[in-house]
Amino acid sequence: MNAIANIPTTDKKRVVILGGGFAGLKLARKLSQQNYQVVLIDRNNYHMFQPLFYQVATAGLEPSAISFPLRKVFQSKKEVHIRVAEVQEVDPNQKLVLTNIGYVEYEYLVLALGADTNYFGNENISRYAVPMKSLGEAIDLRNNIIENYEQALNEAGSAAKETLMNVVIVGGGPTGVELAGAIAEMKKFILPKDYPELDFSKMKVQLLEAAPRVLGAYSEKSSNRAETYLNKLGVEVKTNAMVEDYDGSKVSLKGGEMLKSNTLIWAAGIKANKVNGLPAQVYGKSDRLIVNRFNEVIGLEDVFSLGDMAYMETEAYPQGHPQVAQVALQQAANLYRNLKRRAQNKEQKKFSYVDKGSLATVGRNLAIADLPFIKLGGFPAWALWLFIHLMALVGVKNRLFVFMNWAWNYFTYDQSLRLLIRPKGKVTSTELAENVS
Amino acid sequence: MNAIANIPTTDKKRVVILGGGFAGLKLARKLSQQNYQVVLIDRNNYHMFQPLFYQVATAGLEPSAISFPLRKVFQSKKEVHIRVAEVQEVDPNQKLVLTNIGYVEYEYLVLALGADTNYFGNENISRYAVPMKSLGEAIDLRNNIIENYEQALNEAGSAAKETLMNVVIVGGGPTGVELAGAIAEMKKFILPKDYPELDFSKMKVQLLEAAPRVLGAYSEKSSNRAETYLNKLGVEVKTNAMVEDYDGSKVSLKGGEMLKSNTLIWAAGIKANKVNGLPAQVYGKSDRLIVNRFNEVIGLEDVFSLGDMAYMETEAYPQGHPQVAQVALQQAANLYRNLKRRAQNKEQKKFSYVDKGSLATVGRNLAIADLPFIKLGGFPAWALWLFIHLMALVGVKNRLFVFMNWAWNYFTYDQSLRLLIRPKGKVTSTELAENVS
Repeated sequence: MNAIANIPTTDKKRVVILGGGFAGLKLARKLSQQNYQVVLIDRNNYHMFQPLFYQVATAGLEPSAISFPLRKVFQSKKEVHIRVAEVQEVDPNQKLVLTNIGYVEYEYLVLALGADTNYFGNENISRYAVPMKSLGEAIDLRNNIIENYEQALNEAGSAAKETLMNVVIVGGGPTGVELAGAIAEMKKFILPKDYPELDFSKMKVQLLEAAPRVLGAYSEKSSNRAETYLNKLGVEVKTNAMVEDYDGSKVSLKGGEMLKSNTLIWAAGIKANKVNGLPAQVYGKSDRLIVNRFNEVIGLEDVFSLGDMAYMETEAYPQGHPQVAQVALQQAANLYRNLKRRAQNKEQKKFSYVDKGSLATVGRNLAIADLPFIKLGGFPAWALWLFIHLMALVGVKNRLFVFMNWAWNYFTYDQSLRLLIRPKGKVTSTELAENVS
Repeated sequence: MNAIANIPTTDKKRVVILGGGFAGLKLARKLSQQNYQVVLIDRNNYHMFQPLFYQVATAGLEPSAISFPLRKVFQSKKEVHIRVAEVQEVDPNQKLVLTNIGYVEYEYLVLALGADTNYFGNENISRYAVPMKSLGEAIDLRNNIIENYEQALNEAGSAAKETLMNVVIVGGGPTGVELAGAIAEMKKFILPKDYPELDFSKMKVQLLEAAPRVLGAYSEKSSNRAETYLNKLGVEVKTNAMVEDYDGSKVSLKGGEMLKSNTLIWAAGIKANKVNGLPAQVYGKSDRLIVNRFNEVIGLEDVFSLGDMAYMETEAYPQGHPQVAQVALQQAANLYRNLKRRAQNKEQKKFSYVDKGSLATVGRNLAIADLPFIKLGGFPAWALWLFIHLMALVGVKNRLFVFMNWAWNYFTYDQSLRLLIRPKGKVTSTELAENVS
């Protein structure tokens, strides 16, 4: 479709934001109070809270509890236009975005499309491993784990059973650590009750990290703490472990070791989402867009990039900033201020990141808080983690329901969302005929 | 797979139950306290509460709130074995059930597979209409409706916009009436806020019923009340209306009238789910299995059928029983008593149905209660409906969360679950390559 997309025109300058993640949503909310027209384009009609994907994957939370309809955020903002669309190409010369619903003109363009799983070119791993970078993938992971246990019941041999029960997680960052902890707790508290016919003492939860320690970006103290907690929950942590290949049931490590598992969760790396149409020189490491201190993509005019997708070097961060929500939110806030100042013909302000610290939770009462002034562990860190994550959710109802879910799970030792639900899609009569025969 | 399924053998008699709906679940729960081994086979790993599907479809409730993991129900029952499997065939001579996980021997077989949408042979309708007989289909309907509004934004012409916005519901039974009311309330309270760019005064919600009145199984008083409530909410009710054809955007009625809508919801009929392997003479109207007063399938030995799937004639019900939850539950209870009596060599008891009345809700504070001793409407009926449905849900947590959701929606006039979430499925690298190019 090459027609112009059906978006009202005004005399206000139009800011087109691609991506309704932490950065895109924050910027759109702020700009909606200003004298700009905002067009927010996302492939989904909701904002999703990525830090809690792992709880969706392990049946602790419902997808709806950590996602929020974009339209609801902007119900009273007439100057914000949301379009659910796929971005096909950006034309920085003509100042156009091409999408499946037509092209959209922009005065300013903000690229905030985030990142996706990076398999570093390994085709087998990309084919058989389970990623976890979208809500859909988190649900797939949940379904996948449940299906494996159902399948294990049908196997007579104990080797086949164990391969189905084992879970291997690659990547010792916060996602990998939190997932490993949550799966170990399922093994401990829930699975033996759900599947009394299976022997869960045989199930292994293994966490692989290529570096010498997990949570490499955290302090060494916190990193050691995390490993102690993981061991306590029964997770086998393997550091200095490199995955070389995976065929769907055998994980081959560098050095020759072989692990057996039908579930390999890949949380070992991300790369920025790419859009077509940009010149090659704008890309830095892992497909990130190289931006200056004002988040302008270097070499392009009126094009900005924020968050996971952007690569900015500063004195404090000569290798670029970490790809976390805090950076995305702060960059969005800075760009908002700069767009406001631009309208007033004032000088632009340079971005500089204030690291408020990092949090990761391993299990009930077991978390790590790596704060600038103090390192916490155990229950205090866990309570802090709960509080911070609750407050960061969009919407009072989401907060309330997540809190209730957590309270329920905490006191009953039981996530009750172990449902294998799949939208059916409309079945054609041919498929129906095939099913019957 | 023709091997024997991996299920422990005991010296207890084995009852194989196909289907974990109202009847199957109730029977399995009751039998688990008796001296039988129970094998419960369902294609899903959860029980679903069908009476609330329409609220999942209209974004009022999450699928998880009205479904319950079967394994959780039987966590402490060692003699109940749950298998998530597809039934391929029943062999009543060899007393075997063939499934995709191997064959299962039975002493007694209970067929409780429920019913599915009946398009009465109309291929076009079956291809383009939206059914609502499973949780997956209810989610599909929700996604379908949201997608249509997103699409309407992209249309410049008002005729195309209206066709996308309109909703036609076929079938004036409780499902059709409840859906029509819920969609009319979305039109009134939510959609204009979510889509300020669309003119919802142009949107039509039409309910078609072939008979002279909606809720034909209810008293005339209740039926008139329902129609009044529907009109009040802005639903156009067309009785004596027969759908002849549908091409995805035009609904052709008998007599020549034509309605325009991209969404045709088909709630006009059901037929029993069939299993292969049974002789032709066991089937009655709409593929139901003809059973005697003990729910034994006539002509087969040790095979029973319950609920929507069974057809039993009695003096009070010479045309068979209504296909509702109450009948399924009462038949399950009666069969349980008979199996217990059988073990004690006592005489079997005939089933007779006690109709406790019918309830249907049209909108907030608007419901119909057709009870044996009184007909209620308005708020009292609505409050009764809420209470009965809450109590009928499986699990304290489901009750709590459904109640909280209802309270939230009631006071905020807003369902917040308008999320278009789709599990992605694992994308192969070929598909990835195609997406990029």
